[in-house]
Amino acid sequence: MSYLEKLRAIQDKNSSWLCIGLDPSLEWLRVDFRKWDEPILPYNKAIIDATADLVCAYKPNLGFYLQWGAAGIIALERTIAYIPKHIPIVIDCKTGDIGHTQAAWATGLFDEWQVDAITVNPFVGADAVLPMIGQRPDKAVYILARTSNPSATDFQGELPQESGLSADVLRQSQTWPTAGHKGYVVGATYPEELAIARRLAPQANFLIPGIGAQGGSLQAAVQYGPDAVAGPLISASRSIIYASGGNDFAEAARKAAVSLRDQINQMRT
Amino acid sequence: MSYLEKLRAIQDKNSSWLCIGLDPSLEWLRVDFRKWDEPILPYNKAIIDATADLVCAYKPNLGFYLQWGAAGIIALERTIAYIPKHIPIVIDCKTGDIGHTQAAWATGLFDEWQVDAITVNPFVGADAVLPMIGQRPDKAVYILARTSNPSATDFQGELPQESGLSADVLRQSQTWPTAGHKGYVVGATYPEELAIARRLAPQANFLIPGIGAQGGSLQAAVQYGPDAVAGPLISASRSIIYASGGNDFAEAARKAAVSLRDQINQMRT
Repeated sequence: MSYLEKLRAIQDKNSSWLCIGLDPSLEWLRVDFRKWDEPILPYNKAIIDATADLVCAYKPNLGFYLQWGAAGIIALERTIAYIPKHIPIVIDCKTGDIGHTQAAWATGLFDEWQVDAITVNPFVGADAVLPMIGQRPDKAVYILARTSNPSATDFQGELPQESGLSADVLRQSQTWPTAGHKGYVVGATYPEELAIARRLAPQANFLIPGIGAQGGSLQAAVQYGPDAVAGPLISASRSIIYASGGNDFAEAARKAAVSLRDQINQMRT
Repeated sequence: MSYLEKLRAIQDKNSSWLCIGLDPSLEWLRVDFRKWDEPILPYNKAIIDATADLVCAYKPNLGFYLQWGAAGIIALERTIAYIPKHIPIVIDCKTGDIGHTQAAWATGLFDEWQVDAITVNPFVGADAVLPMIGQRPDKAVYILARTSNPSATDFQGELPQESGLSADVLRQSQTWPTAGHKGYVVGATYPEELAIARRLAPQANFLIPGIGAQGGSLQAAVQYGPDAVAGPLISASRSIIYASGGNDFAEAARKAAVSLRDQINQMRT
């Protein structure tokens, strides 16, 4: 099964374009969890149990696990193993190294951990992508096209004028020959850019961060997010997994996930 | 002590601008090591024992450890702890995420692991750098300016004409206010670009990959590498740590390191 087929299946089953970012953060973590030797895994398990019928993907961000060194990566590995197999997993690590290093990343994340997709930074060019999905038809990368952060404008150019780095990445990377799917990361915090990105890459799946805590446009994500095969991954993290700092954190996460999923679905009609 | 002072001290002590990349790879690993449950750490220890008086830094690349998942990261954590404290450690991970994620990376790598420097991908702009070394005077980042790989030309622009992404990164990032040091990654495979990079960023320390297996110009690295305070990190990995596939791998690594260090030093005079 191709990545897009797997994604489409869960999007239909759960009626959802919602992707939950599993980004553990000690400062946000409910107080009594912080006392555990290993608080991340049980917290993630509770979130997954509470939301697995509401999402189309989970997206753990590598950096939030590495902040505890190897202990964090063990928790990540176990979290990945715990996620039901029919739900796509996107590892958000924005890796972008040269050829043989990207091959090593792909071995670890695709082959060892068996995740479905990885976010990739295209600064080094095609060498960041080809070793990952050149030969893996069931996997995907999400290439950074337009990031959601304030300083995205430093180097990413004028996408509305179709000039500069983001536009170059969208145009050129689509020509790279890969067996796996090339999607793009496009932040909802730049709605105009999102519309242009969709026009430049009509066949590509979009991973859309920036709604929720970052204040991006959900309307633009729903309007310009879908491609011909599947809907986008509309990603939220803190606004769901830390919806409550109390003992009801899992129920609160479920409530926030239902609310966001339904809000998305209402806009789709 | 600032990062540059620490670097300068070991460069003087060991008469060396050589940085060894600790990039474990099963296919290159000596056969009887592959039988171990955990071959990476003992291999790295032998390499470190054989070369610690010959280098100015060690540079483990995160991707080569992640290929074994958490087991690889445990080996990396222990490798870091094993490296003598007076030798700078650069984690090559080319991380480039948005603000709060970069802060998490910095917590893990700078605070938890206590490494000295991290390679950073500037695609997302200043947000990739400020949370890392904005407040850490004893740490450094090496920002990708011109990478050493063949597809570097896809998006990095015309550095010899001082136009495009590499030139923008070099000019703009120097203005970002940081307590820690901003160095740059500039590949020796593009000697002309290396010369321009030195002119655009005269105060910055350079991490120079691409010599050895990738065939870059050692002469250009020695000529344009040094800044006002310290020499560059001239990095080699496979050509040293896998100089021999036999039982003499550590001695062979030492021999290759002596040879490259001395070759560099002869060019300096």
